[in-house]
Amino acid sequence: MKIQKAVITAAGKSQRSLPLQTLVDRDGTSKSALQILVEEIRSAGIEDIAVIVHPGDQAAFASAAGSHAKRLHFIEQTQPRGFGHAVLAASPFTTRDPFLLLVGDHLYVSGAASRCAQQLVEIAQSEDCAVSAVQATHESKLPYYGAVGGRLAAHRKGLFEIHTVMEKPTPTAAEQELIVPGLRAGHYLCFFGMHALTATVMDLLQSALQSSGSSSSIALSPALATLARQERYLAAELAGRRYDVGARYGLLTAQLAIALDGKDRDEVLTALLEVMASRARSA
Amino acid sequence: MKIQKAVITAAGKSQRSLPLQTLVDRDGTSKSALQILVEEIRSAGIEDIAVIVHPGDQAAFASAAGSHAKRLHFIEQTQPRGFGHAVLAASPFTTRDPFLLLVGDHLYVSGAASRCAQQLVEIAQSEDCAVSAVQATHESKLPYYGAVGGRLAAHRKGLFEIHTVMEKPTPTAAEQELIVPGLRAGHYLCFFGMHALTATVMDLLQSALQSSGSSSSIALSPALATLARQERYLAAELAGRRYDVGARYGLLTAQLAIALDGKDRDEVLTALLEVMASRARSA
Repeated sequence: MKIQKAVITAAGKSQRSLPLQTLVDRDGTSKSALQILVEEIRSAGIEDIAVIVHPGDQAAFASAAGSHAKRLHFIEQTQPRGFGHAVLAASPFTTRDPFLLLVGDHLYVSGAASRCAQQLVEIAQSEDCAVSAVQATHESKLPYYGAVGGRLAAHRKGLFEIHTVMEKPTPTAAEQELIVPGLRAGHYLCFFGMHALTATVMDLLQSALQSSGSSSSIALSPALATLARQERYLAAELAGRRYDVGARYGLLTAQLAIALDGKDRDEVLTALLEVMASRARSA
Repeated sequence: MKIQKAVITAAGKSQRSLPLQTLVDRDGTSKSALQILVEEIRSAGIEDIAVIVHPGDQAAFASAAGSHAKRLHFIEQTQPRGFGHAVLAASPFTTRDPFLLLVGDHLYVSGAASRCAQQLVEIAQSEDCAVSAVQATHESKLPYYGAVGGRLAAHRKGLFEIHTVMEKPTPTAAEQELIVPGLRAGHYLCFFGMHALTATVMDLLQSALQSSGSSSSIALSPALATLARQERYLAAELAGRRYDVGARYGLLTAQLAIALDGKDRDEVLTALLEVMASRARSA
């Protein structure tokens, strides 16, 4: 399969303002987090991008997207009914095509020549199936993520055949369902915030919507758990790290990681030392 | 005199989005830069605050101000005619009263028990005249600031009688006009982004507007230079530091300085080390 569409979800109550935040990218220029995400997606050869926004946020997002605004399709999530509901809002845009899904509150720093989105899209296209990016994550952080259980795929390092998906599992549930051979003790494969998905996911979300109450929340993880039973569905550890800009000090941490990866590394290290030194003088 | 009004200027093209940025304040809660500025002002006992905004920005600013929004008077700067023009837009709000002026793109970390705005207002009220906060600044940074020349006031440490003001002086001009006894070599008193001003400044800006072309820019520094000849006008070094969030990596630096000054100091130092360690592992 060939992935030519991408969806960014940014309608969540606590996430709406995050794509509008300004950071200095690794190339030394100031950009909104949204611009950095769009460039991440375009690095994977994808030019057709939908952004799921809270009603009324379109103008602010178009402004924050800068020169990328003209290639974005804005779709409003008309009711606050969860992540799966936000993804489903993109179905008139994705139609029957596979798509790259990114959450609007994460930024990525690649540890390889190609960016994380490009790595994921290449794996999904060569494996010809849905693939979620994952990162081995300590059990203390399970309350923040969806996690997968599975087994190592035989043919490729860092690739896993997913057999189950759980959203924010307890440590006990994780120990029973999500142990993955080969990971360090106490570590699980947690979602990275980036998925290459098939149209089956939209069908499963549509079913979940129809069988749910008229205002209940629709999560993505149960649909992905069903996907794992219906289709080949892989998890891939990418070379790189995710930074949750919605976490406390998430913007600081993401900005620092991006800067230390970029051309301004020395300038930023100097600035950090100056801040610390000025505190030492005034203390 | 008693200062009971404050003005924040945030209408400049490159400054409009800065007060909307999110940081974690020293108390550990996430706030917009605008909220942090408003709390800086309120620490000085001032509850009546005008914000000069670009036309159309009021809704975004009111949202970013959170619970402080109801005490803010929004005033549009209807033409982009410079900093002095933005200050003058506040004159229907300040009327004949003295006022505290803060630029919307700086944040402050105090080195004393009282915050910087409070220190400045106390000095202006006890000296009963206009006072600009200043910081001894290396000549390499003169292109970014207004600077003052003057002499040490006899009665109080860190206080100077201003005789001249220059905007972004060249090193040569600074050496000829702005040498202040007692500063380290190559250092000048540059503006801190915070002024306690009298109604005379509004009169001087009004005169500048009337004698200027209909679209020319009105700067603040020439009005302050005239003020120094007409009234007693002081510069005060405050205990604290300014952080220009509009500078490259300014948000990163300000966030780090605020965090290291606050309750999350250890958490942030740990996060910094984790980012650096994760880079070392992947390198």
